[in-house]
Amino acid sequence: MARVFDPQKESQDLGFGTVLSKQQQLRLLNRDGSFNVKRFPPTLWEKLGSYHSLVTMSWPRFFLLIGIAYFAINVPFALAYYFAGPAALSGDQSLHGFLRCFFFSIDTFATIGYGNITPATLLTNFLVTIEAIFGLLSVGLVAGLVYARFARPTAKIAYSKNAVIAPYRGLTGFMFRLVNARQNELIEVNAKVILSRFEDRDGRRQRVFHNLELERAIVIFFPLSWTVVHPIDEQSPLWGWTDAKLREAESEFLILLTATDEVFATIVHSRTSYSASEVIWDARFSNMFVEEKGELSFDPEKLDAVEKLRS
Amino acid sequence: MARVFDPQKESQDLGFGTVLSKQQQLRLLNRDGSFNVKRFPPTLWEKLGSYHSLVTMSWPRFFLLIGIAYFAINVPFALAYYFAGPAALSGDQSLHGFLRCFFFSIDTFATIGYGNITPATLLTNFLVTIEAIFGLLSVGLVAGLVYARFARPTAKIAYSKNAVIAPYRGLTGFMFRLVNARQNELIEVNAKVILSRFEDRDGRRQRVFHNLELERAIVIFFPLSWTVVHPIDEQSPLWGWTDAKLREAESEFLILLTATDEVFATIVHSRTSYSASEVIWDARFSNMFVEEKGELSFDPEKLDAVEKLRS
Amino acid sequence: MARVFDPQKESQDLGFGTVLSKQQQLRLLNRDGSFNVKRFPPTLWEKLGSYHSLVTMSWPRFFLLIGIAYFAINVPFALAYYFAGPAALSGDQSLHGFLRCFFFSIDTFATIGYGNITPATLLTNFLVTIEAIFGLLSVGLVAGLVYARFARPTAKIAYSKNAVIAPYRGLTGFMFRLVNARQNELIEVNAKVILSRFEDRDGRRQRVFHNLELERAIVIFFPLSWTVVHPIDEQSPLWGWTDAKLREAESEFLILLTATDEVFATIVHSRTSYSASEVIWDARFSNMFVEEKGELSFDPEKLDAVEKLRS
Amino acid sequence: MARVFDPQKESQDLGFGTVLSKQQQLRLLNRDGSFNVKRFPPTLWEKLGSYHSLVTMSWPRFFLLIGIAYFAINVPFALAYYFAGPAALSGDQSLHGFLRCFFFSIDTFATIGYGNITPATLLTNFLVTIEAIFGLLSVGLVAGLVYARFARPTAKIAYSKNAVIAPYRGLTGFMFRLVNARQNELIEVNAKVILSRFEDRDGRRQRVFHNLELERAIVIFFPLSWTVVHPIDEQSPLWGWTDAKLREAESEFLILLTATDEVFATIVHSRTSYSASEVIWDARFSNMFVEEKGELSFDPEKLDAVEKLRS
Repeated sequence: MARVFDPQKESQDLGFGTVLSKQQQLRLLNRDGSFNVKRFPPTLWEKLGSYHSLVTMSWPRFFLLIGIAYFAINVPFALAYYFAGPAALSGDQSLHGFLRCFFFSIDTFATIGYGNITPATLLTNFLVTIEAIFGLLSVGLVAGLVYARFARPTAKIAYSKNAVIAPYRGLTGFMFRLVNARQNELIEVNAKVILSRFEDRDGRRQRVFHNLELERAIVIFFPLSWTVVHPIDEQSPLWGWTDAKLREAESEFLILLTATDEVFATIVHSRTSYSASEVIWDARFSNMFVEEKGELSFDPEKLDAVEKLRS
Repeated sequence: MARVFDPQKESQDLGFGTVLSKQQQLRLLNRDGSFNVKRFPPTLWEKLGSYHSLVTMSWPRFFLLIGIAYFAINVPFALAYYFAGPAALSGDQSLHGFLRCFFFSIDTFATIGYGNITPATLLTNFLVTIEAIFGLLSVGLVAGLVYARFARPTAKIAYSKNAVIAPYRGLTGFMFRLVNARQNELIEVNAKVILSRFEDRDGRRQRVFHNLELERAIVIFFPLSWTVVHPIDEQSPLWGWTDAKLREAESEFLILLTATDEVFATIVHSRTSYSASEVIWDARFSNMFVEEKGELSFDPEKLDAVEKLRS
Repeated sequence: MARVFDPQKESQDLGFGTVLSKQQQLRLLNRDGSFNVKRFPPTLWEKLGSYHSLVTMSWPRFFLLIGIAYFAINVPFALAYYFAGPAALSGDQSLHGFLRCFFFSIDTFATIGYGNITPATLLTNFLVTIEAIFGLLSVGLVAGLVYARFARPTAKIAYSKNAVIAPYRGLTGFMFRLVNARQNELIEVNAKVILSRFEDRDGRRQRVFHNLELERAIVIFFPLSWTVVHPIDEQSPLWGWTDAKLREAESEFLILLTATDEVFATIVHSRTSYSASEVIWDARFSNMFVEEKGELSFDPEKLDAVEKLRS
Repeated sequence: MARVFDPQKESQDLGFGTVLSKQQQLRLLNRDGSFNVKRFPPTLWEKLGSYHSLVTMSWPRFFLLIGIAYFAINVPFALAYYFAGPAALSGDQSLHGFLRCFFFSIDTFATIGYGNITPATLLTNFLVTIEAIFGLLSVGLVAGLVYARFARPTAKIAYSKNAVIAPYRGLTGFMFRLVNARQNELIEVNAKVILSRFEDRDGRRQRVFHNLELERAIVIFFPLSWTVVHPIDEQSPLWGWTDAKLREAESEFLILLTATDEVFATIVHSRTSYSASEVIWDARFSNMFVEEKGELSFDPEKLDAVEKLRS
């Protein structure tokens, strides 16, 4: 099944490519998990025609697009009815000209059919026949897109704003924590932490990737929060490093998460990263549990809360 | 691929978190498999806006919500037609005022369009244009949600009310059984049983998790029932334990099941748990097969039937 | 990850249960892959209400059900309009009484709205409001069900009518072959063959399962046909067996197939079985390729064609 | 889990079957990844009735089919209204005969219901009842198909027109590169390269498959391009081979790719192949990055760009 991911492997660049791996002053992953590399931007046509963008764009933008398409379909039909002449439509004369034709088109496309205005000639009946199938197809397209937008498997993981380096079982540990920001249950949550930093190799300063061993890399349940811990023992690439050294090496901690969304039984992915400046040394995360009247409750608002330790 | 689930591992808390692991008098999993830990409850807005809750709420609640939305869309449009003045709509005068406008709005939104009442001004025609697109989008939204509710992969496993500890191949065994409560076929059914109990470690009473080895952890087919068996041999954490000791340790048997639903080829999950008080000692499950006129038949009603053994 | 499938394991019953494993004169799998064990049949209500049956029933039955539901919704509304009195509806008098109300109900439910008959009272307008939402919901339900029926991942594998035992590389081999009966591409096709037969163990005649090693258990591509071969060497449980002995032991070859459907990237399952009487000894499969005018073509009709060898 | 893919295995034919494996002058995979073997073509009926073809056909063909079905449903209903006699429909007389019936049928099927023509007899009302359910079902069918077409997981990988054999770390390497031609993110991209060529074995010239070891077979991220490299070391089946020898052996490099589409969390497949004549010797791929005003940007148009090396 081919050679698998080997963090020790010299040329391991995770797919960012050699050019980017040599590039400095560049964060690889943004905090929201998107890639900090730009492809040529898609053309407008690619954007509109792309199913992926129709599914991933925001709801307001989506509804705006639907609205534009609604007019873009009705205006040509309205024009066709208009140029078919005054005898093309019979009935209600309270409106005239193009507007009358436009509202008749809406009446037809949306399959309302009040009947106050009706097609009066062979040509207009034929136009109605065509517009009706556009109406039916549009409902199908919109229903399909709306469902696809809904059913898209997404995780909304909230990560602590900062990672900390804190005492951990007689050693220190690199830690960050996360909560599930949705109401759905995530199970079998899997974390991978990769340290990207610049090192001098063969006389050249180049980006090197290190896989950080975790105290626990998978949790079966994720009802509340999870603090991911990399113990900094002698095997750790962070052993003996300091805040200054970490910054100087332009270090970045890449966080890759997969989990199973129980509602749809799909695998969801989440990514983020912490740059050296987002790591707080000699601090620990505050307790997220509050005791009130003998009952423990959990406060997700405290996700980012950190207590500085006296060093 | 990171460190995998290791039941021997000291800090193995399955993701419940250390605070909960120290908490006593708390059942971790409810009988229906839900977590016995409360996050802060979602706000009403989160509930309404959450796709997951729209998909997981009960059908009556879903239809109620659809009904509410139906009115919530039509009332503002009805008001708009009403405030557009008496000349805004022409036709049928059997109803008056707001109600006439409301039923015209329904007529339009649902794209019925009887035509007994019709828009008579530019403004009302424009309102109709807007309402029609709302109607089309609503059909799309409802269709998408209904499908998502249907297509959601769910298993309905019925577990025996009690687990038993009964003789098994010269030893005793911890056993429970299950049937598929749906008509669909489940294949490749996988069981994992984890014992959670309090033990004294390092002078502190704390929750410890033990993975229980099963006589068989996977079955390829699941046409009828499956009795899951943990043989209590010398390696078992139950070796030498009694009913009283099990209760005293606040033991809980966590059951995790995965299976493949053959109809949609999706992985489904099911969970339950047995507390110490739900385990019957010196009892065995009754046969679920009935012989009638030389034919064997299977009676799922007997799932819970247990026969006490003379000890 | 728990104990995995171990064909050597004594109690390996694949999930059919111990009772069935002791049962004779019973074929475990039917030729179409369904289980030859009956659960209690579902009630009519379970059948109607079950999403799985709505998705797996035949198309004629599905359309029939839709038709019945269509009437079942319209008749109560028609009755409601009827009992609302003769003044409830105004307009077209060409039909009278209940039928007039029924067709008005259809006109409303299907959101046609000719307008030749219109609601004339507050009550009928209210009924129309309710019926319209039923109409919208019905389109959503039907669209969702139709899509679910379409999207259901299914493989249609045609298996050769008989398996053969034929010379194979100096030995003999148990062989059967299969073609993809659909136009879609299947890839990564995986076969597992399990021999079920009765043997005398510990003085009792009981069903034993043997995993048959295959010459090749997976093919990456499956463009045409695949002949699955189990070489009968000294390790094979078929070594030294004859046709008579195989029948006497009530042998059954269970065939389990999984494959990836490339169109929807889903895993599909297929099963069948060959009883001892469906195995032809000293025969081989005929070539499925035809050479015509120097061109090779493939004839799926020849799937079952077998040539008897002189022994 | 049965015997896994073993590239060394003598009879490894990937599923193309022994006859095809002996066939010469035949490319196994076309550049677009389709198989270069024809099954008997599907009948028209199979094509129309096949869900897979409805989902995989091009959009123009799909819309054409919808248009044809639209007429195919309305013409019989129009005929039924026509043969129901002149009294069957009342209202608007601007059109006559069959055409009047046809446009009334469209008006009904699309649930417009202008009401300028209305059913006037029991028979026509009954026909309308039937046609209305056809209309509702059609919206469902179209919506389902449209969504299925959208949601189908597909990767659009653009492969370099040619592969090259170029210097690589003191050796030479077989290389090709690829970009994601869609806007969606692909992650965990997995490549497998299989060399198919004719060799003399046991005195017969026959097709042999070799798995080519890759410098890296999986990348976690695929934001830009990926150059897949097979280093030609002493273990490589290409060691010591020349362009002429490769052509003479009718060599073909089969490329199999799987990746995870992040938008729908589905596994997508892509295939292509390079014949010996599509491999350029002593050439290397041009840089796809352009430096402009100190900023690096990526030019996917340069995918095929190759620079010939002086040998």
